[in-house]
Amino acid sequence: MNTIQINTGSREEMVDITDSVRRMIKENDWQSGALLLYCPHTTGAITVNEGADPDVVRDITVNMRKLVPHHGDYKHLEGNSDAHIKTSMFGPDQMLIVENSEVMLGTWQRIFFCEFDGPRNRKLWAQFMPS
Amino acid sequence: MNTIQINTGSREEMVDITDSVRRMIKENDWQSGALLLYCPHTTGAITVNEGADPDVVRDITVNMRKLVPHHGDYKHLEGNSDAHIKTSMFGPDQMLIVENSEVMLGTWQRIFFCEFDGPRNRKLWAQFMPS
Amino acid sequence: MNTIQINTGSREEMVDITDSVRRMIKENDWQSGALLLYCPHTTGAITVNEGADPDVVRDITVNMRKLVPHHGDYKHLEGNSDAHIKTSMFGPDQMLIVENSEVMLGTWQRIFFCEFDGPRNRKLWAQFMPS
Repeated sequence: MNTIQINTGSREEMVDITDSVRRMIKENDWQSGALLLYCPHTTGAITVNEGADPDVVRDITVNMRKLVPHHGDYKHLEGNSDAHIKTSMFGPDQMLIVENSEVMLGTWQRIFFCEFDGPRNRKLWAQFMPS
Repeated sequence: MNTIQINTGSREEMVDITDSVRRMIKENDWQSGALLLYCPHTTGAITVNEGADPDVVRDITVNMRKLVPHHGDYKHLEGNSDAHIKTSMFGPDQMLIVENSEVMLGTWQRIFFCEFDGPRNRKLWAQFMPS
Repeated sequence: MNTIQINTGSREEMVDITDSVRRMIKENDWQSGALLLYCPHTTGAITVNEGADPDVVRDITVNMRKLVPHHGDYKHLEGNSDAHIKTSMFGPDQMLIVENSEVMLGTWQRIFFCEFDGPRNRKLWAQFMPS
């Protein structure tokens, strides 16, 4: 199991981790198979989406906050129930295809860690399975 | 492929299945790799979220019901379209990392079966892939 | 890595790809393990849900459009931010169990490509990992 460290800078943020994932694959010389990225936190998730236009990430973040507001009918006293809900909506796991030591992404795809309750120091775990 | 049996007790509920998953890993002597948990039902999903404070699960359940109400613009005659929608939002599959026969979870993480149209007798499937 | 081609016919649509997945498994003689289906597009996702009554797919599509409207507080100029948001909510990856060269699905389950910004020519990628 390998680890990626991330320091987030605001409460809600999508951090592009594509380069870290690529570096990890090279360093471990993983050839062909599937890579599981896993977030061990309960107020953060992993997703894949467009990275070319930063407005896409802005639109996702702003509209997810609208769908699941920070303040609402919540009993959990830490004040971050919205982050827990969004974590289950996006999911803490992300599967990726690896071929010839390259992560296979579509033209516009980048891999993002979704911070829903930052800023915090976060880590992601990774496990490779050969095909 | 292995199976976990769950009996749910209400229409919407998140059942902590972490101990069942741990037991299954030990019984099968799975060492290091990834575990796919898969829900073969179309009105239930699997997620990972906080298990320490039961209010988190309450907040998730109550607010998902608010986002996707039980009654609405639905044509499906069984009256459970909300459950189908929530199933695709949370997803029927969950990937987990296994190391030294232990499922790797963050400090606050527990594995939950999400019942969206209970009470019912449910089963989950599991497949282990070595790393 | 294998590829499935799909041509979608409308802006929002769920295309049943179960038969294509089954055919791919047979042609490659994949025995037992897990299959990762991966969508390399940023405005389309993969899910598993009920395929028996077409009203379920209609209810999912209509209500996801209500949750994440086509027009709203979006800055991305391509006019498809709703599709990007729904992609991260449903997820671009789907894991499936394969046993004896059969994809293991529940009684009512079918595998769907979710088009959120069609009509377009789409492709899905697949990677098999033995168990």
